[in-house]
Amino acid sequence: MTGKTTKTSILDLCLRAKKASREVKKASTHQKNDAINKIADHLWHSRDAILAANMLDQASARNEGLSDALLDRLLLDESRIAIIVDDLRKVARLSDPVGEIFENQEMPNGLIIYKQRVPLGVLGVIYEARPNVTVDAAGLSLKSGNCAILRGGSETIHSNLALVDAIQQGLKGTNIPGDTIQLISSTDRNHVHKLLQMDDYIDMIIPRGGKGLHDFCRQNSRIPVITGGIGICHLFVDQSADLAQSIEVIRNGKIQRPSVCNALDTCLIHHSIAKDFLPKLVSRLAADGVLFKADEKAWDILSESNFDCVQLAGNQDFDTEWLSMILGLKVIDNMDEAIEHISIHSTSHSDGILTENRENASRFLLQVDSAVVYVNASTRFTDGSQLGLGAEMAISTQRLHARGPMGLKELTTYKWVVQGNYSTRL
Amino acid sequence: MTGKTTKTSILDLCLRAKKASREVKKASTHQKNDAINKIADHLWHSRDAILAANMLDQASARNEGLSDALLDRLLLDESRIAIIVDDLRKVARLSDPVGEIFENQEMPNGLIIYKQRVPLGVLGVIYEARPNVTVDAAGLSLKSGNCAILRGGSETIHSNLALVDAIQQGLKGTNIPGDTIQLISSTDRNHVHKLLQMDDYIDMIIPRGGKGLHDFCRQNSRIPVITGGIGICHLFVDQSADLAQSIEVIRNGKIQRPSVCNALDTCLIHHSIAKDFLPKLVSRLAADGVLFKADEKAWDILSESNFDCVQLAGNQDFDTEWLSMILGLKVIDNMDEAIEHISIHSTSHSDGILTENRENASRFLLQVDSAVVYVNASTRFTDGSQLGLGAEMAISTQRLHARGPMGLKELTTYKWVVQGNYSTRL
Repeated sequence: MTGKTTKTSILDLCLRAKKASREVKKASTHQKNDAINKIADHLWHSRDAILAANMLDQASARNEGLSDALLDRLLLDESRIAIIVDDLRKVARLSDPVGEIFENQEMPNGLIIYKQRVPLGVLGVIYEARPNVTVDAAGLSLKSGNCAILRGGSETIHSNLALVDAIQQGLKGTNIPGDTIQLISSTDRNHVHKLLQMDDYIDMIIPRGGKGLHDFCRQNSRIPVITGGIGICHLFVDQSADLAQSIEVIRNGKIQRPSVCNALDTCLIHHSIAKDFLPKLVSRLAADGVLFKADEKAWDILSESNFDCVQLAGNQDFDTEWLSMILGLKVIDNMDEAIEHISIHSTSHSDGILTENRENASRFLLQVDSAVVYVNASTRFTDGSQLGLGAEMAISTQRLHARGPMGLKELTTYKWVVQGNYSTRL
Repeated sequence: MTGKTTKTSILDLCLRAKKASREVKKASTHQKNDAINKIADHLWHSRDAILAANMLDQASARNEGLSDALLDRLLLDESRIAIIVDDLRKVARLSDPVGEIFENQEMPNGLIIYKQRVPLGVLGVIYEARPNVTVDAAGLSLKSGNCAILRGGSETIHSNLALVDAIQQGLKGTNIPGDTIQLISSTDRNHVHKLLQMDDYIDMIIPRGGKGLHDFCRQNSRIPVITGGIGICHLFVDQSADLAQSIEVIRNGKIQRPSVCNALDTCLIHHSIAKDFLPKLVSRLAADGVLFKADEKAWDILSESNFDCVQLAGNQDFDTEWLSMILGLKVIDNMDEAIEHISIHSTSHSDGILTENRENASRFLLQVDSAVVYVNASTRFTDGSQLGLGAEMAISTQRLHARGPMGLKELTTYKWVVQGNYSTRL
């Protein structure tokens, strides 16, 4: 099986990626799309081998007593492979950002200057659990003209080896080198550390996982790290908001997919509407099985109604990304307090206001500096597909390079091109 | 004197910067320009105190036996202060990137989406020697809505303290907090290490100095670091080039200001013109005092003419940023070899081709992936002012966030703004 690494070969992987990068970088859109479609064909063709490998992962996961939720995350079946393959074909249909020319200008001295979009080079993608990330990351890297060195979770090592094997087989007979997509096959964590030192070869590290992984990467990497994917998300219900519609937006933010980073964590409610609004909100979402963590003011209001699903919030509750059917509730005196709360407790992922007041909406937009700021919409829209990128590699909550959903363009950089007429500087 | 820090107060500086950042971030263009002009007034007004402080730096530099070149770098006099103040007023006149709205779109579901340019937040600027950087960095940070924590070289500590004192005095009575610009007053290098750990407070580290400083920052920083400023720059003279004009471009690249990063280091010459071109090039530049390091083929050609100024190149010579009146010469067989040489030896700062052949120019532009790639122009144009940015904070040779000259826009990021009508995700 190709795609394997031994203990000593992170450098070897890097050297191969660097070499492949020079080819992929200059590949035409047609060549890249053709390669992606060939990979899709080959993944589908190899589905039996992939499912057999996935069975091995499932067996060891069950042996190790992983939860049903985790078992489901790593599970592949024929229909999931079909979705993965279909998503990959969609990437082939996205428009190619590489080569785009922008910011043209002609200087008074006659120099013609423009910027041109080019691939970043080599991406290091470090992720946990889900095997679909292997194929997603491969497709987006290739389409944006980059090479990828992938490091998946140990729970899916057999699946990932089979997937990357199929990817590399798919690349045979195309203009794209097989080394464009490589996998670190050892599950030894030291290899991640080694990878993070390879700043001569890797241009960007994308960790996809929990806070521990992000912190580890930031602490140990010589390579720029895109941190993100951790969302303590807020919606502030202004006194002017349409209450019935606000409840539906909050419900969408909380229950539509509670396990992901753009799910709503805390609802801030203006005190002047709290008495009317809170019991209605809680009744509606209680029926969905939501549990509430209420600050003292909200608790006072809600305790009159004797809801089973309401608890008094503890110290850490407004600093917790719930990833589950829990929602924080806090009554605040005015919008400044809401903005202050968000500035302290938000991870700057996705925060919004529900309001009918344009002035309040503007002030909120000006003062809340999260990756995505909302007016009258669910935080669940923070997603590459929903925001028009077609797909996403990650959601950045850092400030450099890219913020929020990162699609193909965010996996590129630019170079300056300057054309003169034997021009010299005065 | 304000702006001082004690051994234990890096965290304190960071907390102040973070607090000031919330004000500067939302300041209007008018408020920021007004503050910059007040700082300019105050710097000029305080020139005696600044010059007195600079005398202290000069005295210790002489005591420590610093070279004349270094002494000149740290020298301030009234005319240099006038230039610094004038440059600062120019920053006030540049257009403000903050608030710019771009990539508007309306989605089929009615969501209005756009991106809006916002300041990065807090910049850490670590630099060596020249005191003008203190004022440059302050002006560009403020204009782009950022706070700056500055760390200058120990040789200029007195000058920097006086400059930052004047800057903070200038901010009194404006809408911009004095803590917008702070200086680490201790010259203890541990403080730099501490600063590099402050990823909760600082958004970007900009080192301005030699390779050692850049490596130290990359190795030790939890904060994204903009590396750059190190240029091993190439010009390739294609067989079709106008030789007389090429000599003038090479001369400009080498001698106009040899001590800076965009000065030319290596000239690659197509073998078919080498015999004609090399002696002419060497005669012309020898008159300026240039010393040549020639590869064997170039040496063979030049040895016939017995130039005193030509030496056989050693092993490391094509991997050296000369920063002086030395130029590497290498005869190559074809353009592929030139591109290969550049890919191995260039620091991806500034590289170019001199040619009359459009096809060769295109292929060179496609395959050479440096921050700035030139056709028929001197590498000396890699500069924020020359490329239309008005000013520059740094020249990035890394690939993330920004490449090449970084002006005001490159000191900002963006947020996504999403406006709905109580919109929920399906």
